[in-house]
Amino acid sequence: MSGETVDGVVTAAVLVIGDEILSGRTKDVNIGFIAEYCTAIGIDLREARIVPDVEAEIVAAVNGLRARYDHVFTTGGIGPTHDDITADCVARAFGVPLLLDPRAVALLEAHYPPGGLNEARLRMARIPEGATLIENAVSAAPGFTIGNVHVMAGVPKIMQAMFDVVTGRIPTGRKMLSRTVHAPVGESRIAAGLAAIQADFPDLSLGSYPKMADGRFSTDLVIRGRDAARLDAAEAAVAAMVAAVVGAAS
Amino acid sequence: MSGETVDGVVTAAVLVIGDEILSGRTKDVNIGFIAEYCTAIGIDLREARIVPDVEAEIVAAVNGLRARYDHVFTTGGIGPTHDDITADCVARAFGVPLLLDPRAVALLEAHYPPGGLNEARLRMARIPEGATLIENAVSAAPGFTIGNVHVMAGVPKIMQAMFDVVTGRIPTGRKMLSRTVHAPVGESRIAAGLAAIQADFPDLSLGSYPKMADGRFSTDLVIRGRDAARLDAAEAAVAAMVAAVVGAAS
Repeated sequence: MSGETVDGVVTAAVLVIGDEILSGRTKDVNIGFIAEYCTAIGIDLREARIVPDVEAEIVAAVNGLRARYDHVFTTGGIGPTHDDITADCVARAFGVPLLLDPRAVALLEAHYPPGGLNEARLRMARIPEGATLIENAVSAAPGFTIGNVHVMAGVPKIMQAMFDVVTGRIPTGRKMLSRTVHAPVGESRIAAGLAAIQADFPDLSLGSYPKMADGRFSTDLVIRGRDAARLDAAEAAVAAMVAAVVGAAS
Repeated sequence: MSGETVDGVVTAAVLVIGDEILSGRTKDVNIGFIAEYCTAIGIDLREARIVPDVEAEIVAAVNGLRARYDHVFTTGGIGPTHDDITADCVARAFGVPLLLDPRAVALLEAHYPPGGLNEARLRMARIPEGATLIENAVSAAPGFTIGNVHVMAGVPKIMQAMFDVVTGRIPTGRKMLSRTVHAPVGESRIAAGLAAIQADFPDLSLGSYPKMADGRFSTDLVIRGRDAARLDAAEAAVAAMVAAVVGAAS
């Protein structure tokens, strides 16, 4: 599901917040998920950052990224414990107060048994003034959108549910399309041919991605662009070039 | 293996370079590997960034990060194809020429059969003036270190071999130690107790990491710091707090 489609390019950045990612204790999977999803729906992910649970770092990253990109997706730091400071930092970045939000309180009250809404849980109902809630089907505590910043949970299943909601509300752009040609040789064998094709197709992006398995190299050649006919033409040129290189070797 | 140990804290950032990560086509595993390795040897990873194959973005990120942290580890973009522009960008960031390095040429010549060192492969011997090579046991093309920036391959196996070399050459600091206490309850149940213990141990960092499996929440409470005796004391306090919360519920 996604919102309105616009003719131009829609850009975004991901900001992952959490000491546990930078210590290596937890391996981030949210960047890869968001990256793939953005490509599929027509949002160009242009940058990703991981910062620690330090207020000045989070505020600086939020303000730096929201000024540069159409959208910023943050993950992590919106739980009930003392180390969850994302909402505080985003409010500070926007210069607005962080208030107990009656809509968020109602969501939490409906979720917990009577009397279960303790002080820690209420912490998750503190939302920057003027924000829109991001409800989700997995957990009661919402994320929120303020300006072009979308604040989501760090737990992947919850983040993914929130991302569905967010992408249903924002415009997406013309999709970046891609074609992949596999070359059963190392990339130095096809580098010259690929560079020549790139010169013939300046409107497309040709990437070369080496892989190594059992000590042997192969290469995926990926052609990216927004015009399907141009991609078809470039794909044919790359495939012919690879066939010529492979044929010459055998 | 690691170099000299210094008494203070040694900081670092990771810079991942590559369109393929931001498109979601390739899922980065280098950040997690470097993060875990840094923690194990006494380097504090403070930030990670992923940027596209765009010269201005790479130059700005290299210069921004090398000014803030003791070390910058880059991955990706040092292969033989036209889209491998990391060496060019790092040379520009340092304001030095990118030259065909005779040491790197010799490594490549030794690796390929006679006559095999074509123009594309020679591209991998272009090294910024004044840099030290990072040889590796997996592939012939070296990475390099210039100033506090360590430029490595993107292919994980090669990056890992290069990282072994790099960490053997740089000083590491006092190790960040950690203890983990598992709580079989959601984090809102232990949030108040954890905040109180954090207040008692301002020299340590107490993190709370919720997990969800089969629809049930549990929480890992992670205590981090550089003094083992203080960690022992905090671990005992956290374990007692969790036992009290779990006992009260049953």
